[in-house]
Amino acid sequence: MNPAPSPSASAFSEFSKKYSPLVDALMENFFMEKINGADHPFIRDMYAALSEYSMRDGKRIRPLLLLASYEGYKKGIRRRAEIMKLACAVELMHSFLLIQDDIIDRSPLRRGGKSLHVVLDEMFYGKTHNKRIGSDLGIVLADVLFANAMQLISSAGIGSREKDEFIRIFSRTYEMTAWGQILDITHSREKRPDLSGDWPLVISELKTAHYTIYYPLVMGYVLSGGRDDREIAAIREFSLPLGIAFQMRDDILGTFGSEKQLGKSNDSDLSEGKMTLLIKYTLDFLEGDERKKFLSLFTSKSKTKSDISGMRSMIRNSGALRMVRARHLEQVESSVSLLRRLRLSGGMKLAVEGMIEGISAINA
Amino acid sequence: MNPAPSPSASAFSEFSKKYSPLVDALMENFFMEKINGADHPFIRDMYAALSEYSMRDGKRIRPLLLLASYEGYKKGIRRRAEIMKLACAVELMHSFLLIQDDIIDRSPLRRGGKSLHVVLDEMFYGKTHNKRIGSDLGIVLADVLFANAMQLISSAGIGSREKDEFIRIFSRTYEMTAWGQILDITHSREKRPDLSGDWPLVISELKTAHYTIYYPLVMGYVLSGGRDDREIAAIREFSLPLGIAFQMRDDILGTFGSEKQLGKSNDSDLSEGKMTLLIKYTLDFLEGDERKKFLSLFTSKSKTKSDISGMRSMIRNSGALRMVRARHLEQVESSVSLLRRLRLSGGMKLAVEGMIEGISAINA
Repeated sequence: MNPAPSPSASAFSEFSKKYSPLVDALMENFFMEKINGADHPFIRDMYAALSEYSMRDGKRIRPLLLLASYEGYKKGIRRRAEIMKLACAVELMHSFLLIQDDIIDRSPLRRGGKSLHVVLDEMFYGKTHNKRIGSDLGIVLADVLFANAMQLISSAGIGSREKDEFIRIFSRTYEMTAWGQILDITHSREKRPDLSGDWPLVISELKTAHYTIYYPLVMGYVLSGGRDDREIAAIREFSLPLGIAFQMRDDILGTFGSEKQLGKSNDSDLSEGKMTLLIKYTLDFLEGDERKKFLSLFTSKSKTKSDISGMRSMIRNSGALRMVRARHLEQVESSVSLLRRLRLSGGMKLAVEGMIEGISAINA
Repeated sequence: MNPAPSPSASAFSEFSKKYSPLVDALMENFFMEKINGADHPFIRDMYAALSEYSMRDGKRIRPLLLLASYEGYKKGIRRRAEIMKLACAVELMHSFLLIQDDIIDRSPLRRGGKSLHVVLDEMFYGKTHNKRIGSDLGIVLADVLFANAMQLISSAGIGSREKDEFIRIFSRTYEMTAWGQILDITHSREKRPDLSGDWPLVISELKTAHYTIYYPLVMGYVLSGGRDDREIAAIREFSLPLGIAFQMRDDILGTFGSEKQLGKSNDSDLSEGKMTLLIKYTLDFLEGDERKKFLSLFTSKSKTKSDISGMRSMIRNSGALRMVRARHLEQVESSVSLLRRLRLSGGMKLAVEGMIEGISAINA
């Protein structure tokens, strides 16, 4: 028998069991309308591919955080059905980003299935001389999801001030994530890694803390009618360590996790020469020839299986893995204590704490 | 001495001289604020590249049509400064599409300069093992422009009903264009061209008629407070032939225009095996061995300079070029007569007619 789950774990699981299916149902319904209303058969096929991709199992973490924040800050009854449309728009933005991310990273797998550009490549296999047709189509189809997100936003019946504020935050969310993505691209496969700045931390702040935690929570707060800049600052303070913890977990799993857990190869961060915190610490901790050797493997154009497993050992033996694990724990603890300061209702605080527990555990 | 311009040409030139600089000034100001407010030097550099690209000389046809429609339909004084923000958002969407279009088509030139992905490739030359870094960054930077467009939209002080309607049309504009783009991708470099449907016409409708003419005009109409579905239908009727005429002109120039006029090579449509109306008619008109020869050149994986000039002669000799020229003229005439039926003010009608004249002339 498993031990009884903690109260926070139960609170999150109940919240997720209630709201995830609502987000999914709304998304599915949205795509069904698009499929049924398609003017041409090819549009129907494209929406079917987008729907299959977007509906795959996922944590739905961003819409859930938006909804938890809305529920936890709201006073009295407001329009939950309208807020659901906005939560769904946030999830569509996420699919949009994943599609592009996989095209940029040349990743073949996502959420236990093929990446969208691979699905599209196969759809047109043998029909074209264009070897990159899947990526070409994927870029445009990702944009269709962004247009879809805007359609959901325009259809949400909320106050005009809330709507403008939501759009401002939504677009800001995307912009921040884009800067994180750009840093990620420019700090991968570098010939001479830029060790001048705290790039891995800046990337975590932009790509994870803001994108996954801060902005969804602020959206929920603003939609509940919240306008207090001090509360928004408190949400940000809470989000930064949590986002960094998430990114650290991703980095550890990305190199030391099982492929089954990841849904993709655990070689890719290393083979792409991605400047993660693990790499940064390894380069800080190693000295002399060892450091030279690691750096030369890390910056080499192509890496063999044995190069990669050599790098993995060096990261472990240098103490970098232990260090990132320790800092991960610190960040999680700090976020849990900062969560207490928020003016979120007790029930929603408990649920968010449960989500932190669930996602912060590292089995690697 | 040149002959005096027609009244419509003068009306358009005056309108454009008044409003183009306003759109550009707002766009420049927007980018300056982004550059000055950048949190990191790399963000400043990226916005500088986006600004240089977006501010290059261009016809600004979509914001001008939106503004002409707004001015021509509005009753009494409304908020022109707020409408300018929306016109500017439409122009940013256009830059976003051009950036992606050049990545997808591997086009090195745009608006008399290098395509954005080429600019970015050069920025990171020698620093990375990633040979596609310019395209990778370009995809993300294009998205930043879309986020910027949303920021402009959220900041526009207009009624909440107009705002929702504007966002609905804006996102629909993008979606329709995406479908056109997808047809364009799937009907280029085909191994066996799909001659079953009127694809070149469908592509013109989606990519040009809706994107360039219909939606900008409807945006202006709706922003002026217009709500009459019959007027919207009349705008659509006018836009279809004009959009098709524009596309025909583009197709003719794309194969028979001078490179100087085009700002890019006049070989690319043919070398990419793009299914344009010129190709469609050529395949309709040629018979027997001639048709077989043309089809085999058209569907070949790579084409020599002499293959391309051979195809050019066959298009001309088959009568397809003459046919597209004749149909182009018909479409222009039909659009001019449909323009008269719109309830747009006389002054703006004249300006739009001037724009049609200016853009519909084909010097090839």
